[in-house]
Amino acid sequence: MTDIPLIQADRLHALMDAFIAHGGEADGGMHRLTLSAEDGAARDHLAAWMKTQGMVVTVDCMGNMVGLLDWAGPDGPVVMTGSHLDSQPHGGRYDGAYGVLAACEAVQSVRDGMIAQGIAPRCNLAIVDWTNEEGARFQPSLLGSAVYAGLLDADDARSRQDGDGVTVAQALGAIGYDGSTTFPKPQAYVELHVECNTVLEREGARFGAITRHWGAVKYRLAFIGRQAHTGPTPMEDRQDALLGAAQLIAALGAMPGRAEGTLYTSVGRLEVRPNSPNVVPGEAVLFLELRSPDQALIDWAETEMLAQADIAAKATRTRHETRYIDRRGVGFFDEGLIALATTEAAALGLVTRRLDTIAAHDAICMIHVCPSVVINVPSIGGVCHHPSERTSPEDLTLGAELLARMLWRLCEEGLAA
Amino acid sequence: MTDIPLIQADRLHALMDAFIAHGGEADGGMHRLTLSAEDGAARDHLAAWMKTQGMVVTVDCMGNMVGLLDWAGPDGPVVMTGSHLDSQPHGGRYDGAYGVLAACEAVQSVRDGMIAQGIAPRCNLAIVDWTNEEGARFQPSLLGSAVYAGLLDADDARSRQDGDGVTVAQALGAIGYDGSTTFPKPQAYVELHVECNTVLEREGARFGAITRHWGAVKYRLAFIGRQAHTGPTPMEDRQDALLGAAQLIAALGAMPGRAEGTLYTSVGRLEVRPNSPNVVPGEAVLFLELRSPDQALIDWAETEMLAQADIAAKATRTRHETRYIDRRGVGFFDEGLIALATTEAAALGLVTRRLDTIAAHDAICMIHVCPSVVINVPSIGGVCHHPSERTSPEDLTLGAELLARMLWRLCEEGLAA
Repeated sequence: MTDIPLIQADRLHALMDAFIAHGGEADGGMHRLTLSAEDGAARDHLAAWMKTQGMVVTVDCMGNMVGLLDWAGPDGPVVMTGSHLDSQPHGGRYDGAYGVLAACEAVQSVRDGMIAQGIAPRCNLAIVDWTNEEGARFQPSLLGSAVYAGLLDADDARSRQDGDGVTVAQALGAIGYDGSTTFPKPQAYVELHVECNTVLEREGARFGAITRHWGAVKYRLAFIGRQAHTGPTPMEDRQDALLGAAQLIAALGAMPGRAEGTLYTSVGRLEVRPNSPNVVPGEAVLFLELRSPDQALIDWAETEMLAQADIAAKATRTRHETRYIDRRGVGFFDEGLIALATTEAAALGLVTRRLDTIAAHDAICMIHVCPSVVINVPSIGGVCHHPSERTSPEDLTLGAELLARMLWRLCEEGLAA
Repeated sequence: MTDIPLIQADRLHALMDAFIAHGGEADGGMHRLTLSAEDGAARDHLAAWMKTQGMVVTVDCMGNMVGLLDWAGPDGPVVMTGSHLDSQPHGGRYDGAYGVLAACEAVQSVRDGMIAQGIAPRCNLAIVDWTNEEGARFQPSLLGSAVYAGLLDADDARSRQDGDGVTVAQALGAIGYDGSTTFPKPQAYVELHVECNTVLEREGARFGAITRHWGAVKYRLAFIGRQAHTGPTPMEDRQDALLGAAQLIAALGAMPGRAEGTLYTSVGRLEVRPNSPNVVPGEAVLFLELRSPDQALIDWAETEMLAQADIAAKATRTRHETRYIDRRGVGFFDEGLIALATTEAAALGLVTRRLDTIAAHDAICMIHVCPSVVINVPSIGGVCHHPSERTSPEDLTLGAELLARMLWRLCEEGLAA
């Protein structure tokens, strides 16, 4: 094995600082919606970096970008690592971007180290930036990796529209990332991410490997009433779509307390039409989510949510209509890669905390392609999707170091390791 | 008195049809937000019409437009009539526009008739188009007439911003209606409007005079929570601004059933931030209204609403903040003008129904300037603020005819009549 530390922390932090220019905000937050001008600039920056490293860059029809270091020859197995450069609106700097930029540092360090030591690599290395992981501008989340993994039809995904009616295909074209080269399936996938939870911090741990992802059911559910004047229209004649939606949101908020087990519910987005102060809303569209580690509980919650929607519609003389459903079952990551993470962390004197993830990661799609894992370092206070999201420089360095060590071991010993 | 009919129905309907071009939609609706390009085109059309009639057009600092027929001499008293050309988003064709265009027909007919009969007019006639009656693009509603009546400071009103941050002053400038001439106070004000309620239709009546306007309290009330990831953030740690807002909206919906008397409540607009599917909302701003014919009930409702907001904030670990309050007390129109309307309707064999208005009209501000009244013809099904809003051609003609007869009488007999 190589010297410790394997990576160059200063170089990692400089690269991360440089990417703040692409959408960073004065309050420390990040506003880099997928396929926006800021995202385009970040992608150009990443592509330029990959090319200076002699990597071959490919872009597929979803704008997923891959840089390949094919130093083990054209027929060598591929270990892929990365995450996503897009952020939530006014979100944080590390969610996603850290996994891509730490992958850059890790791959560069492994390559330089193995060449310096004269070790012949047994795997090629690929760095990926997935499109629209966040699901903020286009729905669903994990859009790019879902198409890559064959879980979603490409034409369907490319036709999804943002709030202004711009399709994914149009947005890809606008920033020059409407590609046509699908990267071949890798043989392993490792994604580094900040934790977005407080488990590591609460337990004083610094490193985790995700073993299970929660299931999630997401609905886009519309209440449809009738637009009318908020003044003269008698209360008993109103068909107020927002009132129906509000009753369902309140009922969803009460469901976790009624559930026998762990259930998370949320409505993150609500579209009200025409949304004018003097007009009874004619339509209100909820983007709602139900999440649980227990599949049976998700099933119960979905049925209960629809029953509550019926009650709200009846009470408000409106009707409801399901416009889109995204169901993701409970799933598990690769125990071989979890063991590798655990071994490498132990070599640094660290215990690896086995974690659940409730948030989605592109690795959830990659489970369907190859052995996959997500590794975590703490986010201070568990914050994610907020401008104050931070990870200490030491932990940022640690995560990249452990990623590099995993890649080194896979390149040195091959995928049977 | 003149021949019946006084007005030319074909000319009225042709003028109304011509104005559909300025924002009319394929479904029969109207989208002419105040100070939009469509509103600018409608104003230009109106100004051109006024000039062909020899009227002097003035525009004040709120964009309120007045065309004056000064045939009784520069010192003659002024009877003002009109309404507003702006509409709700995807609203109806008649709400507002009818009152302006019927005023055009009525004034033209009265002038031509009195000149033909050689009658010397004892009043001048003015036609007005008020800015932002609807309160859709800028708040509050009645913005132009409120400034004219001295109820709102002009600088304050001009600084109000729409959803895109454009101020009233900027929007006025953009369409060339940032004027500087305040029209002198008139001595009477008559506004013709479609009913926006079903009282006339239910009773088989065709004509009404509004005697009382309901009171209204409007709040812009924000719930402030903390933006977070909808996945990993534990339910007990969430500060969900939308959940707080939804609980208040549900409570507001239940208040009319609890009130001892007639109370209307509504939330027409809700702004959610950042409004992204995977993010717990950090802010939700409600535009809520409480309306009643009973001032004591409005006062109760305001106190109760704030108590419910406290309950919702506590339950959701959020806080609420009042950003704007608009209070309008219960008020009464001029009995002299109501009697005039009643007499003229009786001359056509019609009984005048005394009505309340729950909707706001610019005449509510004009009560503070001079004797004022609103007269109504039915809207089919009571529809207002919806593309299907319609009034029968016969009733459109009738309303204009009665307006003309009232103007004739005032011009013939003077304001002591």
